[in-house]
Amino acid sequence: MRILGIDPGYAIVGCGVLDYENNHFGVVEYCAITTPSEMSFNRRLEVIYDEMTALIQRTKPEAVSIEKLFFNSNQKTVIDVGQARGVLMLAAQKAWLEVFEYTPLQVKQSVVGYGRAEKKQVQEMTRVILGLPKVPKPDDVADALAMAICHGHSSGSLMGKIRNI
Amino acid sequence: MRILGIDPGYAIVGCGVLDYENNHFGVVEYCAITTPSEMSFNRRLEVIYDEMTALIQRTKPEAVSIEKLFFNSNQKTVIDVGQARGVLMLAAQKAWLEVFEYTPLQVKQSVVGYGRAEKKQVQEMTRVILGLPKVPKPDDVADALAMAICHGHSSGSLMGKIRNI
Repeated sequence: MRILGIDPGYAIVGCGVLDYENNHFGVVEYCAITTPSEMSFNRRLEVIYDEMTALIQRTKPEAVSIEKLFFNSNQKTVIDVGQARGVLMLAAQKAWLEVFEYTPLQVKQSVVGYGRAEKKQVQEMTRVILGLPKVPKPDDVADALAMAICHGHSSGSLMGKIRNI
Repeated sequence: MRILGIDPGYAIVGCGVLDYENNHFGVVEYCAITTPSEMSFNRRLEVIYDEMTALIQRTKPEAVSIEKLFFNSNQKTVIDVGQARGVLMLAAQKAWLEVFEYTPLQVKQSVVGYGRAEKKQVQEMTRVILGLPKVPKPDDVADALAMAICHGHSSGSLMGKIRNI
């Protein structure tokens, strides 16, 4: 199964595409979509939408894993991150992709094994799981890869459960 | 000048298209884009985007007037309204439209003449200004028409200022 992990934002969108087969992850591609602050906000939304559409067309994922936004996230930026997340969801929907949402707690539990793990630990475990020489930068990209791992693990355990029925 | 006023939302998007010439407003079209709660959120975003795109293509506005979202808006829904607003902005951007944002205070001042006006007063003044027999329903549509009036007045006064130079 090919999974696209997304860390939503408007200045930086983290993207990570992984293949998950037989309990093993293969790295397909990771990148950041960035938009400069001088650009009008509407144009930034368009760049995010167009680049995400291009990434989906290029890598052909089967599922999207994206961070669930909460109201207690950074209060100053939450509305603009929400607007960017809307166009990211639209890009996924236009490609008929299924979208799965996970909380930061679920990602930590899935990648490190416990929910109070620190950001650095999540990034280091992401690096180890994917066999990468270094933690990808910026942080948003590492976070997006962790989102994809989280969905791989959780769909794997779902499949296990279905098989057990 | 043809103005598209938008009251953003995900269950109901209010839309109002007005022509503003020589201090007079002409009604072109008003409607609500609605999405049912049983629909997946991503599909709702797609319906909102597609219907807004169709409305823009049909009515060919020159400017968009949309409500500015604040963090102190309804806390429970602000993220989802933000996501819907993102795809509405994308539809405007894809049509190369200029987007103008106004606060509820600015709309009240522009339509009724003072910022503490009640919602009902704004709706009634909107009805009078547009010469409509009744206040359009649902409220979101009346609010969208008020947004469009607000931009007409404010661009009109800008033009006045430019002429006075």
